[in-house]
Amino acid sequence: MLLEAIYHRPKQNWAYAYDNQTIHLRIRTKRRDVERAEVVYGDKYLPWDQMCTKEMSVVGHDELFDYWHVEVEPPYRRLSYGFKLHAGEETIWLTERTLGKEAPNQHLGNFEFPFLNPADVFTPPAWVKDAVFYQIFPERFANGDPANDPEGVEPWGGKPTPSNFFGGDLQGVINHLDYIEKLGVNAIYFTPVFEATTNHKYDTQDYMKVDPHFGTNDTLKELVKACHARGIRVLLDAVFNHSGRTFAPFVDVMEKGADSPYADWFYVREYPLRVVDGVPTYETFAFEPKMPKLNTENPAVKAYLLDVARYWIEEVGIDGWRLDVANEVDHQFWREFRKVVKSVNPEAYILGELFHEGMMWLQGDQFDALMNYPFTGAVLDFFVNGKNDGAQFAGKMYGQLFRYPHQANEVTFNLLDSHDTERLLTLCKGDVQKMKLAALFQLTFLGAPCIYYGDEIGLSGSHDPDCRKCMPWDDSEYDLDLLGFYQRTIALRHRYSALRTGSFKFLYAKEDDTRIAYERQDDESHFMIMMNVKKKERVIQLALPAGEWVDEIGDARILSTGKKMKFSLPAFGALVLRKLES
Amino acid sequence: MLLEAIYHRPKQNWAYAYDNQTIHLRIRTKRRDVERAEVVYGDKYLPWDQMCTKEMSVVGHDELFDYWHVEVEPPYRRLSYGFKLHAGEETIWLTERTLGKEAPNQHLGNFEFPFLNPADVFTPPAWVKDAVFYQIFPERFANGDPANDPEGVEPWGGKPTPSNFFGGDLQGVINHLDYIEKLGVNAIYFTPVFEATTNHKYDTQDYMKVDPHFGTNDTLKELVKACHARGIRVLLDAVFNHSGRTFAPFVDVMEKGADSPYADWFYVREYPLRVVDGVPTYETFAFEPKMPKLNTENPAVKAYLLDVARYWIEEVGIDGWRLDVANEVDHQFWREFRKVVKSVNPEAYILGELFHEGMMWLQGDQFDALMNYPFTGAVLDFFVNGKNDGAQFAGKMYGQLFRYPHQANEVTFNLLDSHDTERLLTLCKGDVQKMKLAALFQLTFLGAPCIYYGDEIGLSGSHDPDCRKCMPWDDSEYDLDLLGFYQRTIALRHRYSALRTGSFKFLYAKEDDTRIAYERQDDESHFMIMMNVKKKERVIQLALPAGEWVDEIGDARILSTGKKMKFSLPAFGALVLRKLES
Repeated sequence: MLLEAIYHRPKQNWAYAYDNQTIHLRIRTKRRDVERAEVVYGDKYLPWDQMCTKEMSVVGHDELFDYWHVEVEPPYRRLSYGFKLHAGEETIWLTERTLGKEAPNQHLGNFEFPFLNPADVFTPPAWVKDAVFYQIFPERFANGDPANDPEGVEPWGGKPTPSNFFGGDLQGVINHLDYIEKLGVNAIYFTPVFEATTNHKYDTQDYMKVDPHFGTNDTLKELVKACHARGIRVLLDAVFNHSGRTFAPFVDVMEKGADSPYADWFYVREYPLRVVDGVPTYETFAFEPKMPKLNTENPAVKAYLLDVARYWIEEVGIDGWRLDVANEVDHQFWREFRKVVKSVNPEAYILGELFHEGMMWLQGDQFDALMNYPFTGAVLDFFVNGKNDGAQFAGKMYGQLFRYPHQANEVTFNLLDSHDTERLLTLCKGDVQKMKLAALFQLTFLGAPCIYYGDEIGLSGSHDPDCRKCMPWDDSEYDLDLLGFYQRTIALRHRYSALRTGSFKFLYAKEDDTRIAYERQDDESHFMIMMNVKKKERVIQLALPAGEWVDEIGDARILSTGKKMKFSLPAFGALVLRKLES
Repeated sequence: MLLEAIYHRPKQNWAYAYDNQTIHLRIRTKRRDVERAEVVYGDKYLPWDQMCTKEMSVVGHDELFDYWHVEVEPPYRRLSYGFKLHAGEETIWLTERTLGKEAPNQHLGNFEFPFLNPADVFTPPAWVKDAVFYQIFPERFANGDPANDPEGVEPWGGKPTPSNFFGGDLQGVINHLDYIEKLGVNAIYFTPVFEATTNHKYDTQDYMKVDPHFGTNDTLKELVKACHARGIRVLLDAVFNHSGRTFAPFVDVMEKGADSPYADWFYVREYPLRVVDGVPTYETFAFEPKMPKLNTENPAVKAYLLDVARYWIEEVGIDGWRLDVANEVDHQFWREFRKVVKSVNPEAYILGELFHEGMMWLQGDQFDALMNYPFTGAVLDFFVNGKNDGAQFAGKMYGQLFRYPHQANEVTFNLLDSHDTERLLTLCKGDVQKMKLAALFQLTFLGAPCIYYGDEIGLSGSHDPDCRKCMPWDDSEYDLDLLGFYQRTIALRHRYSALRTGSFKFLYAKEDDTRIAYERQDDESHFMIMMNVKKKERVIQLALPAGEWVDEIGDARILSTGKKMKFSLPAFGALVLRKLES
């Protein structure tokens, strides 16, 4: 057995409470090295000979490792545990203090989950497990009130530049809620809506006021109410890492320098505030002088921003916050943020923007979820860029699932594109079949999918600002087949909980092969999904459990005896087979 | 290169801010597998070609792994980084998304330390780096006020039973501060002093009141003041996991059941409160009915205990809390506890009792340090029990150092025995030489050593209650040679910062060999320490850097040319060589 490959460490994704009764335990071993793994567990205040043993199972693997998982329920909420690994005649024990052949015989030195305290259980809001998000960039979705258009507004549908305006606003969204509802999404994520000078509004001027070109605070209140009436949740963008250049406290510091009462609201390295060789003398987002970093360690700044966080939930009724550049703000701030947010709405969703791994933010005291960019990367590399084979793709997906507690995976924010990237259709170089396949995976995988406005009707768009085109409202411009695909697939996801929260397993994922098959299953339904990621028809061989199966995206019905069968898949085609009840 | 052995994960002990400028980065590779390791790092908003490279070094190893370390200072507080590992012709890159030969060329997918926010820097109180603790079990240290003796008090020096009393009190400690000061310790850790029914006081009755048999709150205030006047800090024991059976709220619940306004102060599974088949119907410490677990998630309980935490610091001036059964209390409680404690005394020391690994408690938001039982175990196994050879001992010590951020190691609480274990001399089966050698290691290693009262004069004691004997005050009963050894070694530690916070490195630690040598060094001094853990004289070969060296525990002076020399060490003997300034 390769001892160097074996890994477990208490807490994080390795040993965590899934709910108030259940602890998940996981280990990693070298791929195909260990035949069986068991956990030996019990209460640390009971005699060692009362320890129980439970079989673990491999729930995933990548090129290097097998990932083992088991769940246990400690009767008195305390857990002492160790692992027993078998390969042929060899048995290896893993405890906190040992890794070797010698069997432990006492709790001291064993791993511990000392006590399952409910306060520490990471519990993201349950509704997110069932959410399908729609991302709206308000300046470009719909112009519902020309009276609030900014000066120099350009005609709807023109070419976006970094700085032009088209007049999109919140009334526009209200006017098109029928459309949104019909698409089937049940949550909207809005990029910033607060007063700011740019079209993207990431340079906040006033955190307590809807941008006048988007409407008023009352318009937002009306929008949230109208959404809620249709069962649609609303997520706003909290840009708390930095303000805009026109934010009053920053304006004051620009004017008065160190004498400003707001001097400590920012991180000034040197007065006067200026840019030297491309580097501002104060800290900013990236090196952008227009976005001064807020000193979130300053109690006054903290109080102000926490007030903002509370206000929009309490007064306007939003269902959560997406946190811009969340990783550069201190953890202490986010811990207080969570307390405030959850105190006014325990079901609020706190979604952090992080491009890298974020276990430290997902321990129950900070965020509920992360924008799942590793998912984005893996799906695009496999479905769109042709960079990976099935085995590599499966390895990345399993690795990603294993990186976090299961409850984090259930509410992770799975996006394929956004206002910061090329649009999915453009990434697919216009190949709608390819695009549909990637979206089908997104919509049948664990986590909350998010569709960037317009993708569903075939809107294309290169890098920013091109990906921020105006949403067309003349449906002769729509790819109605694509829209129908999104509507049907979203509806399918809503209909079957197995596609949302069921177990996930790859059934077919091989080297030098871009066919994949995976299974999603819960007590209510059982899906076998096959995909052919190639621009030609291919056959995939797979055994379905015996019974009758129906293809939920085509018409086919298949009767299986349980033996291997051949399934023909068109270029970038798929079968979404659901077992019919017998 | 063995890819499966390579490990790094952002945050925790792998990538952390040591101070407001410095980030420590660490990786693990298979033992003797990688010849050179480099970190490639830079600001994530600068172009990739501006990345810098810095050499890492192996700072320790165990049987399986080499541990690499490097520190970097990101100029704009943001860090993108990856590792480049070399072995022969082979170069392997490790980033967040890749492990392989392909060199990264963009920040996306690289590891990140997103922003060095001071609020998140784990900063334990600096004084602890220089502390030598003395642990006092108040009922057994000295009886300074016979007027407050409990009923049935037994004559000082009698045989301890689980329930008898000898009349030790706080006045007794005040009376003997000369002795304590002369020993050289500069901090005292008291096991509980609050009102309780037992002699150990871990069953608190009133958290706001010194036990009447120990004195009054004013006596404690006087004691703390007297200690401070001598430069001695005072640490009290916070038993917040559970109360005693006579704690008024619990008495009320026992009486009134679910109707008690205190019903939610505890975790009651079933009324009435009773014990069924050895298991209380309410949660307790272990299965001990006299120690009902406090519901620290209940805001009323939290407010009460945080008030306690604040009171003894504000009103009495204690310098910190040792947290009993700290691991079974929820993390949320400890986060609030830290805030309260640090708000009244930013230099207060928060020390958690955990028998297992505790990285989750050492991230800056909860504890400052842990009781270092893994240190206890490793030192006893090597010096006392003869269970390990030098290589195994070094592996354990290095592994332990690598498990936590460096600032945690600097203030970890290194004990060799306590009121819960056999005494060190008894563990050594009365072999004072052996005991001295173990203590010498403790007193020349990183972290705050703690001496259990009486060890220094040769007090023996088997398991609880025998390890809680009365401290004799007739020095004809003392092993004065041992006492002198402790006084000199403590003084040596105080004199040379290298022994407290200098670098640590094993120079000699081999398989099947119980001789060891290690180095401690800082800008001010340089120590080479050799030890012979065997009951016979042995020679150790070692090269000292050229120059003159003096043995700080003997008289020898040694002139080294820098070549290997032979040093003769008596049975369980040591040389503590310090380089003389040239």
